[in-house]
Amino acid sequence: MNKTILLNKRPQGKPELSDFKTITETIPAAGAGELVLKTRYVSVDPYLRGRMNDARSYVPPFQLNEPIQSGIIAEVVESKHADYQTGDFVSGMLAWKEYQNFFCKGLQRVDPSVASLSSYLGVLGMTGLTAYLGLTEIGKPVEGETLIVSGAGGAVGTVVGQVGKLLGCRVVGITGSDEKVHLLRDRFSFDEAINYKKSLHLKQAIRAACPDGVDCYFDNVGGEISDAVMTQLNTFARIAVCGAISLYNETEVPTGPRLQPIILTRRATMQGFIISDFSKQFASASKQLATWLGEGKLTATETIVEGFDQIPQAFLDLFEGKNTGKMIVKV
Amino acid sequence: MNKTILLNKRPQGKPELSDFKTITETIPAAGAGELVLKTRYVSVDPYLRGRMNDARSYVPPFQLNEPIQSGIIAEVVESKHADYQTGDFVSGMLAWKEYQNFFCKGLQRVDPSVASLSSYLGVLGMTGLTAYLGLTEIGKPVEGETLIVSGAGGAVGTVVGQVGKLLGCRVVGITGSDEKVHLLRDRFSFDEAINYKKSLHLKQAIRAACPDGVDCYFDNVGGEISDAVMTQLNTFARIAVCGAISLYNETEVPTGPRLQPIILTRRATMQGFIISDFSKQFASASKQLATWLGEGKLTATETIVEGFDQIPQAFLDLFEGKNTGKMIVKV
Repeated sequence: MNKTILLNKRPQGKPELSDFKTITETIPAAGAGELVLKTRYVSVDPYLRGRMNDARSYVPPFQLNEPIQSGIIAEVVESKHADYQTGDFVSGMLAWKEYQNFFCKGLQRVDPSVASLSSYLGVLGMTGLTAYLGLTEIGKPVEGETLIVSGAGGAVGTVVGQVGKLLGCRVVGITGSDEKVHLLRDRFSFDEAINYKKSLHLKQAIRAACPDGVDCYFDNVGGEISDAVMTQLNTFARIAVCGAISLYNETEVPTGPRLQPIILTRRATMQGFIISDFSKQFASASKQLATWLGEGKLTATETIVEGFDQIPQAFLDLFEGKNTGKMIVKV
Repeated sequence: MNKTILLNKRPQGKPELSDFKTITETIPAAGAGELVLKTRYVSVDPYLRGRMNDARSYVPPFQLNEPIQSGIIAEVVESKHADYQTGDFVSGMLAWKEYQNFFCKGLQRVDPSVASLSSYLGVLGMTGLTAYLGLTEIGKPVEGETLIVSGAGGAVGTVVGQVGKLLGCRVVGITGSDEKVHLLRDRFSFDEAINYKKSLHLKQAIRAACPDGVDCYFDNVGGEISDAVMTQLNTFARIAVCGAISLYNETEVPTGPRLQPIILTRRATMQGFIISDFSKQFASASKQLATWLGEGKLTATETIVEGFDQIPQAFLDLFEGKNTGKMIVKV
């Protein structure tokens, strides 16, 4: 028995469970040069929403009635490749299947003796690289500057804030619950955190939390939160556009204040990225993150949901902000 | 008799002649180390509109009942400074006065034997530097790429397009009249030009003119023209935000489609600038522009209006697109 989760229909607006369909296939065998992988941990990420649309983006859309793919940690249960043995663990972009056969291309080995398996989806995986490289390559924070992070309680946001502190910035997070506000301040050492759902005047709250203005904005959300941050930018501010979760489920082109006057008068730079844009820096960035994690300077936070069947619901919960840190399904 | 033009009141929305007031003062004498300058050519520029508001921007606002300042070419008519003699010509940020006394700080010498005096306000002045450095430092066009320019028939736009051609790009201009469309194609060698006022479906017109998409967007206007261009960006596109003339007279915060989803999925970079951000490159850029001008590879275009009293009207005419190339008042 091998459960597989397919894209049943393209979500209209907010995704629903009925957009997914679980089928049962047979467990595959390994062909020549192949592995059979058993799924252990599944990453669910906001960006997957974009691939569910039939629209031009940086990766091709998921196809209807085909499995969804995301970052997965799997165990090798059969190997017909000389480099891999049964019991090895790997990380890669894999299908939402309990078992799958796979050529080895694009897999990274992960070592459970160095860090927990799930951390290779989080702080030591794409999440950590996205946070570290987006911040350092685009945000370019300088010691003493003010960094503000939206989606601060999420997988990327919690790492961005911690890295910002390690780089000597004043760090302010925007998040969606009082619980996360406390966590950001107490566990992740953010200087300030703002619950945007309780801030009637978000612009004023940001101004109060950033008395010297905003030099660097790491944006995971877009929308009205970003509108408020943009009004507080300093001259030569940098905006790393990492995600726009508040806009992913819009069915019409979302509108808001035009940014050109702010970008112009503040001489700001706004840059979108995906992590593969910085693949040349993966090795050095991974090393830095692992060092900080080993030294206890970086704390990994995960929301772990159990059960293969829970993958779609865990994905939906991202849009309700039900995760703190990295949302992972343990199979 | 020395006419002086003051800011009479801050414009509400579109500026009007009554926002300015002309008074008559006595002609000053030069104090120790000073010059008396006679105004010969006055630059009127869209960015001056921003300084007429009492708002935070990159330069302090003009004060009520004080003279407006802009780029001016003047003749030294009295000198108490060893480096200057009567009959010398200088360029600088000067007041809208027929005569003014001035310390020499911030003046550049201009040589009428090298190029026309007015060209030091245009292609050999701030206009040319803005076009060349904004394009090369932010737009970073590569041979064979597509460059699109809004406000293409204006002072900066005509230079941007010509420099883009010299750098080997396909160059498309967006402008506001059929006359300018023809001029851009025939005189300035743009590959295509679009009259946005006659394009019911600007997005489609841009797509037709840029079949390989847009790699580099030099934006002088903001607003709906930019909305249409943004939909046609290629991956890793660069947007140099030089001006936003379509938004300068808005009295409410203008709204439009949110840019984050495009910036993110195209991994685009959008950067605002003013020319002083690149002051270290002025010397090399000026040399390149003068070389191209001397070789006949660059054509200066000016709309010259005569008479000191015409300065305010010439400024208002910028917002109607009545100029082609650089708008200059000859005194």
